[in-house]
Amino acid sequence: MSHIYLYSPAGAVRDKAAFRRGVQRLRGLGHEVEIDEAALSSFQRFAGDDATRLAAIGRAAASGADLAMITRAGYGLTRILPALPYRALAKATRKTRFVGLSDFTALQCALFAKVQAGSWAGPALLEGFGREEEPDEIMMACLDDLLCGQGEGAGWRLPKEEAGQSMVRGATLWGGNLSVLTALVGTPYLPQVRGGILFIEDVNEHPYRVERMLSQLLHAGVLHRQKAIVFGQFSNYRLVPHDKGFRLSSVVAWLRSQVKALVLTGLPFGHVPTKVLLPFGRPCDLVLQEREALLLWGDEPRQTVA
Amino acid sequence: MSHIYLYSPAGAVRDKAAFRRGVQRLRGLGHEVEIDEAALSSFQRFAGDDATRLAAIGRAAASGADLAMITRAGYGLTRILPALPYRALAKATRKTRFVGLSDFTALQCALFAKVQAGSWAGPALLEGFGREEEPDEIMMACLDDLLCGQGEGAGWRLPKEEAGQSMVRGATLWGGNLSVLTALVGTPYLPQVRGGILFIEDVNEHPYRVERMLSQLLHAGVLHRQKAIVFGQFSNYRLVPHDKGFRLSSVVAWLRSQVKALVLTGLPFGHVPTKVLLPFGRPCDLVLQEREALLLWGDEPRQTVA
Repeated sequence: MSHIYLYSPAGAVRDKAAFRRGVQRLRGLGHEVEIDEAALSSFQRFAGDDATRLAAIGRAAASGADLAMITRAGYGLTRILPALPYRALAKATRKTRFVGLSDFTALQCALFAKVQAGSWAGPALLEGFGREEEPDEIMMACLDDLLCGQGEGAGWRLPKEEAGQSMVRGATLWGGNLSVLTALVGTPYLPQVRGGILFIEDVNEHPYRVERMLSQLLHAGVLHRQKAIVFGQFSNYRLVPHDKGFRLSSVVAWLRSQVKALVLTGLPFGHVPTKVLLPFGRPCDLVLQEREALLLWGDEPRQTVA
Repeated sequence: MSHIYLYSPAGAVRDKAAFRRGVQRLRGLGHEVEIDEAALSSFQRFAGDDATRLAAIGRAAASGADLAMITRAGYGLTRILPALPYRALAKATRKTRFVGLSDFTALQCALFAKVQAGSWAGPALLEGFGREEEPDEIMMACLDDLLCGQGEGAGWRLPKEEAGQSMVRGATLWGGNLSVLTALVGTPYLPQVRGGILFIEDVNEHPYRVERMLSQLLHAGVLHRQKAIVFGQFSNYRLVPHDKGFRLSSVVAWLRSQVKALVLTGLPFGHVPTKVLLPFGRPCDLVLQEREALLLWGDEPRQTVA
């Protein structure tokens, strides 16, 4: 049984039924679920005004929980990055794993950039546990592993054309939502990771916009500093007749022509039910054996290196 | 009569009827219209592959025309910024005014950042002259003024709450499409303008995305270096029930709380028919007299200062 703290650092929770379902499911798994007092706050599109959300993040840091999970992402963290309680969060990460995705990428990046503290890329309550359908089994198993301290890595099957033999050792794993991460380029909140493994995902973004974002990371020198770039799931975009053959694979091919880094696709992570949990800021090995890719981070946190 | 060179540095022209209409209208105005050999090229969503579009830009620079106008924007300049013929373009700007908007913002920024050469923010052929309805009279008058060397400035009426008395003198005018400009933050292609007047516009971007982009410019220090920030037209986005009162004016109010710069709205520029032409990189005065705003750049190019 783990102590899970639920809080809302970004968008307001509108679907209260999904919220209740998510809480009940976590409790049904035997966890002690603590709900932040402002978890259901609402101001404009946000889960409370900036001060309310900052206070909620502070309470999550002070909770002593095993896991601090966001109720949902949405939008709201970018604008409060200068005021985050970085020291309290860094101290809290010795015990509490902070988990989330999408807009939460902004906090994860800032936390690692400012105080070298790690976190977990993984589900939010509503999209992970609040839907009417049962939560995804792989995601649930990964969360179990995390809470038991047993997760040692994640593997997935590559497209045929990416098969090979290769290994990257001890590289800092970092990344998340490409739009949110790219919106930090040029600011103090983007981690300066050298020799890292960058994972990216996005939703509702046409491949030309994905390419424009990758161009920014490329021209800013970020991609040249990575040993590997791993595409997660890019979902819910629509190609149009004007594309005439331009698609996400065109962007991947273009990227491969621009960088020396290993570029892989298919990581089960993103705005999709089936996703693994990934340790942001942890040194990892990336092993490529024919069509099997493995990200390995071991069962104990090693020292985090920025 | 002016010599106008039409070329396609970004997206492919699909609407050939609009292209012909635009050419005929410019010729009907008495101009000599020269069409680049690759103006109607197509590769995927682009007006030809990267080499084709770079060559077209080179021919536009070598054309000796009075005006080099893009056929349309779309997407395609960001990825070829490292390979632009900067010296040829800088030399060409002594005679040829380069005009465009949207994706063209990338070239305009890069040109000013790398070789301190100015350009004009203004219409593309298709959206400015290719529609079935008659071209906008204000836009046409501004283009006339530019071609006759008579344009000295642009004025517009402010919302009541922005009325005041204020003046900014000799500040470098720069800006364009917010998405494209923001995609250059952290790269060598964003001009380092100090004490400038930044104008921005966008299309299809929800206010929360506009705010996220402004956050990036803010946290990267760009906004703190400007004397004024002028909102052009933000068009074709949809507010949703989840916004609950969050709208573009919320973003403007938030921005005013974050910067000391004068923040004005309503500049007639953007993805709309009625727009003025603006000299990117030119020192300007910005005069605010009650509800009238005036951007003044004089009738002759002054020395450009980065």
